[in-house]
Formats: sequence, structure tokens, C-alpha cells
Amino acid sequence: MELLKGKKGIITGALNDKSIAWKVAERAIAEGAEIILTNTELSLRMGTLNDFAEKHGCKLIAADATSIEDLGVLVDGAMEHFGGPFDFVLHSIGMSPNVRKGRPYEALDYNFLGKTLDISALSFHKLLHTLYTKDALKEWGSVVALTYIAAERSFVGYNDMADAKALLQSIARSFGAIYGPARHVRINTVSQSPTATTAGQGIAGMEDMLKYAERMSPLGNATADDCADYIVTLFSDYTRKVTMQNLYHDGGFSSVGLTAAEVASFPKQEND
Amino acid sequence: MELLKGKKGIITGALNDKSIAWKVAERAIAEGAEIILTNTELSLRMGTLNDFAEKHGCKLIAADATSIEDLGVLVDGAMEHFGGPFDFVLHSIGMSPNVRKGRPYEALDYNFLGKTLDISALSFHKLLHTLYTKDALKEWGSVVALTYIAAERSFVGYNDMADAKALLQSIARSFGAIYGPARHVRINTVSQSPTATTAGQGIAGMEDMLKYAERMSPLGNATADDCADYIVTLFSDYTRKVTMQNLYHDGGFSSVGLTAAEVASFPKQEND
Amino acid sequence: MELLKGKKGIITGALNDKSIAWKVAERAIAEGAEIILTNTELSLRMGTLNDFAEKHGCKLIAADATSIEDLGVLVDGAMEHFGGPFDFVLHSIGMSPNVRKGRPYEALDYNFLGKTLDISALSFHKLLHTLYTKDALKEWGSVVALTYIAAERSFVGYNDMADAKALLQSIARSFGAIYGPARHVRINTVSQSPTATTAGQGIAGMEDMLKYAERMSPLGNATADDCADYIVTLFSDYTRKVTMQNLYHDGGFSSVGLTAAEVASFPKQEND
Amino acid sequence: MELLKGKKGIITGALNDKSIAWKVAERAIAEGAEIILTNTELSLRMGTLNDFAEKHGCKLIAADATSIEDLGVLVDGAMEHFGGPFDFVLHSIGMSPNVRKGRPYEALDYNFLGKTLDISALSFHKLLHTLYTKDALKEWGSVVALTYIAAERSFVGYNDMADAKALLQSIARSFGAIYGPARHVRINTVSQSPTATTAGQGIAGMEDMLKYAERMSPLGNATADDCADYIVTLFSDYTRKVTMQNLYHDGGFSSVGLTAAEVASFPKQEND
Repeated sequence: MELLKGKKGIITGALNDKSIAWKVAERAIAEGAEIILTNTELSLRMGTLNDFAEKHGCKLIAADATSIEDLGVLVDGAMEHFGGPFDFVLHSIGMSPNVRKGRPYEALDYNFLGKTLDISALSFHKLLHTLYTKDALKEWGSVVALTYIAAERSFVGYNDMADAKALLQSIARSFGAIYGPARHVRINTVSQSPTATTAGQGIAGMEDMLKYAERMSPLGNATADDCADYIVTLFSDYTRKVTMQNLYHDGGFSSVGLTAAEVASFPKQEND
Repeated sequence: MELLKGKKGIITGALNDKSIAWKVAERAIAEGAEIILTNTELSLRMGTLNDFAEKHGCKLIAADATSIEDLGVLVDGAMEHFGGPFDFVLHSIGMSPNVRKGRPYEALDYNFLGKTLDISALSFHKLLHTLYTKDALKEWGSVVALTYIAAERSFVGYNDMADAKALLQSIARSFGAIYGPARHVRINTVSQSPTATTAGQGIAGMEDMLKYAERMSPLGNATADDCADYIVTLFSDYTRKVTMQNLYHDGGFSSVGLTAAEVASFPKQEND
Repeated sequence: MELLKGKKGIITGALNDKSIAWKVAERAIAEGAEIILTNTELSLRMGTLNDFAEKHGCKLIAADATSIEDLGVLVDGAMEHFGGPFDFVLHSIGMSPNVRKGRPYEALDYNFLGKTLDISALSFHKLLHTLYTKDALKEWGSVVALTYIAAERSFVGYNDMADAKALLQSIARSFGAIYGPARHVRINTVSQSPTATTAGQGIAGMEDMLKYAERMSPLGNATADDCADYIVTLFSDYTRKVTMQNLYHDGGFSSVGLTAAEVASFPKQEND
Repeated sequence: MELLKGKKGIITGALNDKSIAWKVAERAIAEGAEIILTNTELSLRMGTLNDFAEKHGCKLIAADATSIEDLGVLVDGAMEHFGGPFDFVLHSIGMSPNVRKGRPYEALDYNFLGKTLDISALSFHKLLHTLYTKDALKEWGSVVALTYIAAERSFVGYNDMADAKALLQSIARSFGAIYGPARHVRINTVSQSPTATTAGQGIAGMEDMLKYAERMSPLGNATADDCADYIVTLFSDYTRKVTMQNLYHDGGFSSVGLTAAEVASFPKQEND
């Protein structure tokens, strides 16, 4: 397949081969796209993205997505590298110092909360602002951000990331209403099954959440590979009129109240 | 592209070259699929589907989708023709005698309402039941039904079709929860922009609705061709974990409250 | 309190003292309302509604809510009894022969399905049609129908009642868009926690569903008494601008993805 | 009526007699509640809340809702004044420097955005945190925050307030999941019709939005007085199991796609 033949784009947030963004990068290349990778300096040192870039001959530009300056360098660099505007961008960036430090939601550290929102949500506005201002996306370009259903329903342990994802999804809608008429660029979020990435490991009780989601998803949890497949359709020309949507990619979890598999796991009642 | 290379499926509801189903059929063939077409005897006489079948060498099986017998003949015929289970089905069937006869919603004819629901919604259950019972879909098969946002929000003139579409969408979820675990088949609905099809012409004020939707859609209304592009992604292997979703394919309309384009069309106020 | 002082209305669907409708009737009377009760002849014989009517001095009119004739008798009788138009109506009617006879969703009896929809959903349209045609509701009157979240998310065992409730909720929106401008009548649905009524007992695994919902509801399941409290606010003059809404009355269940209480009930993993 | 007889609570955000919060305060008092009013020092000087406090004999405590210190003083002051925990709180606080300074959404000032979020959304978390930490709310207490449908759908001109309201609504869900099990406190947001308050005047094209919303609301726009009526039901004991909900109080606007009234206002087409 060459679903993205001739297309060019930026993939943010890949850390290592467990990252969804990593899988999207691999898949996009396999579908004929040319990509630029980006992450923070720190993440580049911690992870193995350099290996990926080397192996696939991708350009890699370090950038802190909370910094307008860095994003300017990234987008300018991409336009220079690609020889002009490009086609797609993946936002796959999220981190909560409150989660990392074990601050419960009812006792958040507000400086940490500011960072959670800045890294996980406002970075998306800054990225879109930079792309828009520099007119860096082609007509009918596509932007996708990864999110989670905690933005709509409360999940124990997801903490302030739930609020960050709700904010992220709102930014997708708000900016989509502007970028659509102006440049025919579409902006969507993909609400993915819980996924065993390095970032996901920070969430308390991730293992339980994965098993619960598996039992409650009629098709089972979507994997990072599944997600990559799905996202390339959203970058392709097949989905040009889909915008401002939050798209559940979750094996059906979001439309389920209770499954037979979940009932089968209920604690047995001795006296029932 | 050969997004559907080697895949086989049934397309219901195509009448003529304005039909969304017609466009999906064309697109599916262009993407490498082999298809069987179906519609009622009456529609086959009224429309031009025979020409399509002849031109593309497709098998055509007449069937009334409200009849379990006819659906049995259709699915048996498809399995025989394809040499076994197949991959995808499009449900694109809807009709309201109340709309046709101009009965307002507050004074529906209840026999007509029964027909609206049977044709536009229960036919989907019957189709899924037939596919399921005969084990006619392959693992990771995909079923899509066309719907409209009137299922969630009231549109003047859409009448009892709103209720039929709400019922249709519920059936997609209910059956998706069963077909998923049993056979890894996914079931989704696509909520399409108002589209100038022959069926759409029956809706009062369709022209106004199209213009309004155009002003309120950041990317403009999605056309029947756009819809065909989108639906083939849902039939493809790229979207295997998407199920039980109502997917808006509408240029952003569903996520809009008020656009600049709509404000620009507001009646001028003399004394403002 | 006299939240409904001077108000008059019809309460459908009370069978016995476990019924939500029974609790609403008691509460409405306690709040100063005058009510008329109705149910089918069969339900009047099976249940204890006659006792209620006698004790509280309420008029009782037998009616089959699927019959336009019966509904005409009911509404005419109410207008005569009340001396003119009245203020509120509760629709609390639902039954699925498929559930009763143990037909699984993938193998519904379609005659039964027709009955499920007619009794549980179309009866609401017929009731509204009768009220509207006879101009039986006062300006700013209020109509409430009971529903369940299975209309939005799949619950194992809820079967075709899920589809019926989705249809019911759509009818509330569709008719609300007409009754609002015409007579300032509001129409809403209340999506109640699973409740241990006589009707609820027909649902497979009701006990498990109740316990699950309890664990997944931050305030615990709402009881029938809680529901009665809530519904009288919707009949009162305090909520006159709320219409066409589906209102969750469920202790928070609908906004929850996973709770600590649910995690605590998860099966223990020996090797984790 | 004495719907709130014996109840005590805090009303934030009233500025003058056009404020929704002002109307809620009046209504709560009329329903038998004892209230404490609060706003920033600046707002107290700009508006007429002192007059209200004097007239009704209410305690008034100046507080900046973005300051944990101020909120501590407020809640401590309330507990001292009321002699212990109290029953309800209204959050009615929102302001966007970007809107005020005319910065378009695609070119937000990020310092301003930080303030928009802090004032309009994070203040709600800080308020809840303070109440929770000090155990200031009684069992079955109720917290309501005012919001707007721009949190779900894009409205031209609403700018970064849309994102702030989305964040606010997420905080209501997230904290509701904690406060519910811990203390049986419920937290909801009320999504009100556009309202001609002093704050609303800052929104570009408010007049057009009001007229549009009026045409698109089957019961017409809900006024500030209507909103006050509704909110007192949410503070009352009649709604104790409603939590983590976003409740539309909007004359039906949120469930409408297109009304006859809107169609009647469409520009006439010369050649149609």
C-alpha cells in the first residue's frame, strides 16, 4: 500500500518502540510518506529515536513543544527540509508531574498542574498556531492528536491528565473551526484504548485498567500498531471532510456499558 | 490504490448515480473489491442500477431488506457467488411514507411510521441477523450503515426519519456488542452531511438545509464522493478496531455551534 | 413542601409499590399535585394500583398506551376530571416480549420486536400526539419519560429494550421541537440508575448489574424514591426552560469510566 | 416556597443585577437559604454587590478565586459565619483577557491564555480543593458551576473561553468522582443559554448570538431568572443523586439542528 505516497509530515512524541508515535512513524513510512521526527532533547537521550531516524533516514529536530521558539525552529526546519508546506502532523505529547509525583487529584500541586496542561494540551495550540502562522500545511492537510476517554468519563488514577485531554480536545475543535475555512486543514483527536507505552506505565493501576478495558471492549483493546493503521487513514486523502471530531479507536469500549466478559469476571457471591 | 484488494462485499441501496451507495460501489471496485449490488425490484426498475451492474460486471440480487426471506436469498447468493464468507456490507436504506405523504411529525400515520422504522432501521437488524446466522462475514469483516445527525438533534422537516436513524444507530451498537466478541466483525454508522441524492429530495426544504449546512461546516459539506472515500477506509484493514461508533463525516458541522459564515448570512438589523 | 401546588397531571405505568411511577405519584401528591393514574387493564389486575387510587382518592383510568383510542379516552377523561388542560405527564411504560421469552438479541422475534417498540417507545409518540391534538397540556406544561443508559451504551442482557429506549429518547427530542414553540411544553427523558422494580426483574443478570452500577456510581445508585424527588422538580415551574434533554439521574454512573470501588472488586491476579 | 429552607451556601461571581449569580443569590434567599457572597476586590468596587449584601443582610467576603490563600479565607470565614459546614456553592467566574484585548484564537497571547484558564477553570479546582480539604461541605452538599455549550461546539468569537469551559466541565467530573464517595457531595455544571450579562457583553457579536440562539431554541433562550430557578433545584434535596453532569438549561438549543424559526430567517434566494 502507498496510502501516503508523496505525503510529508511531522511526527511528535515518539520515545521508543513502544510509543504509539513510533508505530505511526513506521507505518507512515511504509505507506510512502516522508517524515520528520521530533521530541525534547531529554527524550532523545532517554529513548531510542535516534536509532529510528538513522535506520529510516529521517530528519530529526529536537524541540520542546511548550516553547514557541522551538516550535518555530521545528516548523521552519520542516518547511526547509520538505521544500515547502507539508501534509500532516501527529501530536502525541502528554505528561503529568502530578501523576509522576503521586499527588492525588484532590490535592494537586498547581505548578505541576500548569505544567500538565502546558505540555499535554497547550502545546497543541502552540503547534497549530505555529503551523497556521507560517502557513506550513498544504490545502487539505491533516492534524491528529492522541487523547483518552478520561476526557469524557472519570477513570481512577488518570488524575489531571483527564482535564488536560479535555482541554486538548477542545483546542482541536476550536482551531479546526478556523483552520478549516482558512486552509481546508482538518484537525481531529483519536481516543485510543489504554496502551502499554512507557508513558502509560506512569498511570497508577495501568495493568488493571488494561485488563478491564479488554473485558469491556467487544473487539478487545486496540494496540499501538492498530492505532498506527488507523491514523494513516486520517492523514490520507480518504478522510478529507472529517474534522473537529474525537474518534474512538478502542475496540468499542466507548459504546459499552457492560459486557458478558465483564460479568464473567465479577466476584462470585456466596449467598446469592 | 487498492485499499480493498481481494475484498468482497454487498452494497445495498444504490438507485442511480446520485446515490451515496452508487459512489461507494464505484469506489470499492476502483479499490480492488468485488461487490454484489442489491435493491428492491421496484428500485431496480426506477433507477439505473442494472446499467451499473452491466458496466462493472457485478452480480445484482433483488431483495426487499424488510424481508427475512429476501435477505436470506441475498446472503446465500452472495456466499455462493463469492465462494464463502465475505468482508463488508453497506446499509444505505431509508424511506419515510410520512415524509412522502406530507404527514407532519405531530400527526404521523402510525402505519406509515411502522414502515419508516421497518425499512430504515429494522432492515439493518434483519440484515445483521441474516449475516450472523449464516456466518456470512469473515473475521474482521466490516459493516457500515448511513445515518444523519437528525438522530441526535432535531431538524425541521426531517420528521420520523430522525427517530428511524436513532433506532438504526442503536442497532449498530447493540449488534456490534455481539458480533465483535463472536466473530470480530465491526459495525459502525457514518453520519453524513446532507447530500443531494434522489432520496434527499423528499425532505422538505432540502435546498435550505444544504446551504445552511454548508455555511455551518468549516470544511463545507461532504459530498457523496467524499463519503465513498471515507467508507472504503472503514471497509479496509486499517480500521479494524473501530466499532459501535457513529462517525460524523460532515465537514465539521457536528462540532459547530455558530460560524462566521453563518453570522455573515444573518438578516441585517436596521436599527442595530 | 408544595412544589407542585395546584398542578394536575397523569402518571402512567405504576404497577405496585416498587414502581418508580408509584413513587412519583406518591411524591407528586405530597407536593400538592392532583393526579390521575393509568395502566392497562391487565396491569391493574396484576398490581395494586387500585389500592393506591383508593387510599389517595385518585381517579384511575384504564388505558392501553399503544391504542390511540384508549389514549383519547384517557386524555378526555383527564380534561373532564381536571376541568380543562393539565400540567404534567409521566411516561413510565416499557416491556419486551423478547426479554420475557429469552430471545437473544441476535435472534429476535420480529413480531416481538414490533411490540417492544410499540409499547416502550411509540406509545410515547401516541401519548404526545393525543395531548397535542386535544391541546390537553397547559402552557409551560412538562412531560417526562423514563429511560436507561442502554440507549447510548450496550449493556449485556438489556436486549431490544436498548433500541426501544433510543427510539423513545429520539421521540422526546423530535416532539419537543414542535411542542415547545407551539405551546411552551417541555419534554425530557430521565435516565435512571438500574432500579429493582418488578419490570427490572425481567432483565437477565439484574442483580449483577445493580451491584456493578453501585460500584461504578460515585454517589451510589439512585433509588426509585430519589427518582421521584428528581422528577417532581422537572414537573415544577423551576425547570421551565429545560427541554429535549436526556437527564442522567444515576449517582454519576454515566460520567464514570472506572472507579476505585470497581478496581477493588477486580479478580486478584495470582502472579501479578 | 422554601426549597432551600435552612440551607447555607456561597455564591461567587455576582457583579450587578444582570449577573446570573446575582439572580441565584436573590432566588436562594427567597427560597429560605442563608448565603455568603464573594467576588474580587476590584469587582466589588466596579459592581453593586455591596448594595445587595446590605439590603439582604448577607455577609460579603472579598476573594480572588485564583488564590488558594484567598479561598482559604473565604471558606474559613464561611464556616465560622455559618457555625460549621454548609450546603452549596455556586461557581460563576470567567474572564478572558484574550477576548477583552481582541486577540483572535489563532493568535492567542499565551500569558493571557494562562489567565483565562486560571480564572475561568482552575479557580474551580482550587475552590473544590479548599472545600474538600477543610471538609466545609455537609453530606449531600451541592456544587454548581456555570458553563456554556461552546465547550462542546465551536462558536465564532467565543475564543479561548470555549477551552476554559471544556476544562471547567472536566474538573467537575474529575472532582465529582472523588467528592461523591468521600462525602456524598455532588458537582454539576449548568450550560446556560447565552445571557445578556455584563460579562457576556465582552463576547464579539453577542447580540447576533442571542438572536440566533433564540431562533434555534424551541422554548426560547433561558434568562438569568430562569437559570436561578433551575439552580436552586440543584442545590435542593430533590436532586441528590445527580452528579458529574453537564446540564443544558437552554430552551432546547443543544438538541436542535435546525428550526422552522431559523429557516424563516434565511436569506431569500432570488432565483430559487
